[in-house]
Amino acid sequence: MTTTVHFLENSVKKPKPNADQIAFGKHFTDHMFVMDYETGKGWFDPRIVPYEPITLDPAAMIFHYGQTVFEGLKAYRTKEDRILLFRPEENFKRLNLSSERLSIPEIDQNLALDCLKELLEVEKDWVPTKEGNSLYIRPFVIATEPNLSLAPSQTYQFIIILSPVGSYYKEGIQPVRIHVEEEYTRAVRGGTGRAKTAGNYAAAYKAQEKATKEGYSQVLWLDGVEKKYIEEVGSMNVFFKVNGEVITPELNGSILEGITRKSIIEVLKDWNVPVKERKISLEELYDAYSKGQVEEAFGTGTAAVISPVGELNWGEKKMIFNDGQIGDLSQRLYDTLTGIQTGEIEDPYNWTVEVK
Amino acid sequence: MTTTVHFLENSVKKPKPNADQIAFGKHFTDHMFVMDYETGKGWFDPRIVPYEPITLDPAAMIFHYGQTVFEGLKAYRTKEDRILLFRPEENFKRLNLSSERLSIPEIDQNLALDCLKELLEVEKDWVPTKEGNSLYIRPFVIATEPNLSLAPSQTYQFIIILSPVGSYYKEGIQPVRIHVEEEYTRAVRGGTGRAKTAGNYAAAYKAQEKATKEGYSQVLWLDGVEKKYIEEVGSMNVFFKVNGEVITPELNGSILEGITRKSIIEVLKDWNVPVKERKISLEELYDAYSKGQVEEAFGTGTAAVISPVGELNWGEKKMIFNDGQIGDLSQRLYDTLTGIQTGEIEDPYNWTVEVK
Repeated sequence: MTTTVHFLENSVKKPKPNADQIAFGKHFTDHMFVMDYETGKGWFDPRIVPYEPITLDPAAMIFHYGQTVFEGLKAYRTKEDRILLFRPEENFKRLNLSSERLSIPEIDQNLALDCLKELLEVEKDWVPTKEGNSLYIRPFVIATEPNLSLAPSQTYQFIIILSPVGSYYKEGIQPVRIHVEEEYTRAVRGGTGRAKTAGNYAAAYKAQEKATKEGYSQVLWLDGVEKKYIEEVGSMNVFFKVNGEVITPELNGSILEGITRKSIIEVLKDWNVPVKERKISLEELYDAYSKGQVEEAFGTGTAAVISPVGELNWGEKKMIFNDGQIGDLSQRLYDTLTGIQTGEIEDPYNWTVEVK
Repeated sequence: MTTTVHFLENSVKKPKPNADQIAFGKHFTDHMFVMDYETGKGWFDPRIVPYEPITLDPAAMIFHYGQTVFEGLKAYRTKEDRILLFRPEENFKRLNLSSERLSIPEIDQNLALDCLKELLEVEKDWVPTKEGNSLYIRPFVIATEPNLSLAPSQTYQFIIILSPVGSYYKEGIQPVRIHVEEEYTRAVRGGTGRAKTAGNYAAAYKAQEKATKEGYSQVLWLDGVEKKYIEEVGSMNVFFKVNGEVITPELNGSILEGITRKSIIEVLKDWNVPVKERKISLEELYDAYSKGQVEEAFGTGTAAVISPVGELNWGEKKMIFNDGQIGDLSQRLYDTLTGIQTGEIEDPYNWTVEVK
């Protein structure tokens, strides 16, 4: 890369967490990447520094007006000790898409990826060797100007932190039971649903709390306008196999444009499995279910890759998919995606990027 | 109060800003109030400390999932040198209402007000003497746990910072020109519109940017579902005087429950001016306007108190209210509210709270 990334080595190296019991998102590596932005100056001073607290004025805009975006992706260690990223350019493309909605300045996609690669070179020992484990990568941008005026910040920080994580499925793939949320709304057209921004997430906790109380592990979100159409499950995109055809809600501005979602669609097309992105109402799904036509249901996201939906609870109406077991197609998609990500199988799509 | 607030005095005192040219939200006093929260322990260690940067782990949840709420109110200095707050208990009540939506633990309303009063006693010299100036108060809560899991934080900080501000109307009250926003959405039923939370604000910048480009100073927000009903203007509630009756959109879960809004309604009732909280569509407003029935329009909020709307631009349809001048009722409401706030006129409602 042409930009020079300054490197300040951490003299203290933390012990790695026990590979068999890593809690998600609680362990962080020895270094982080930081870059600053000022209006008129652009992004400057890219640097790799010891992982350390961020110091911000109490009036920093991130604390008051929510100008912030983030991404999530993983680095995997192959059996041959190579380190692979999965479509990272898509994450940085989406980061900019989110930033545009939040009035945050863009970051050159190639520069961002190069910086991540440099950070990973420094932290390569932190990419777990245990099968199923990986290094979770969290790039994020925060508005840092100390100013209570309601206007976009003039200064920002772009930060990347790294967190070793365990397998999402410690005891094999478990289909989840989902609760249809009819009161709370995650997103609406014209809102920020398409963006990966902080405000969308805390807003969802109340619904998750309700679902948990009623014994369900996640929430199915309906559209904010008519409360009829299926949008997402938990923080994942959702797919249904109905009568041999795979259906997923079309991107409408309020649904997150998942990279796993996109990859699944591409794989299905490659396999000649019919796949449609379109509006799908809960009513339509229930009708198909009543006729015995819903064969499989699953969520997709970076964390789980594929998360089979065993049960959907819509008030009095309950739907059990594939006897509450993972379906054949879901399993095949899971094996293929994770196989490509971890270098276990050949990558015919050129999706993986090796960190040298 | 029963709780002891620890006080660490700042040895360095900043000079006060020039009273004639204070930029909003950029100057802060010498001290701030801080209190911590931990699950199982509750709120603890209330303290007044030097105004200083906040130090947080880069994985602190505020940076990733937006669990945060805030309030805004003002302290005024009267001609007799008393310091007055305007209905502060309403702000702390609303802070808790916002916190409930964001899964943030409540703070005892009386404790919060007592802590604010103690902070104001320390900082009383910072309450401006110049007429029209005031001390803006910003209480806020942020999620501080370093954890990338999607779940409510186990730790929080409650912080109050103070900022001397100039008069909202430096050159007399200027009616504003408003642009009706039909693409972007501020809030929707089931969302977080009712809460004063960061995510609602940055999400509005794109619409504001559009309005500014087209020569308008603020945005009129429509409901997120039908895009038909009037909700707010900019970050204010909105009122219309139509045929002798004052109408304001009813609280529906997506409109902020303004304290100025509430006070205006109470004053109007006291004056026997008919006032209705109900749904009002833009179509209905335009019909009334076409018949010459819309007499006045104004926004209400802590910053401006009353902000007359001179013009409303709805695509091809333009509405000019009261020849673009402030109306009699708007002026009388402004004089009454600001008179009570600054102790210029008697407070028949017992709204002001003196800081001794």
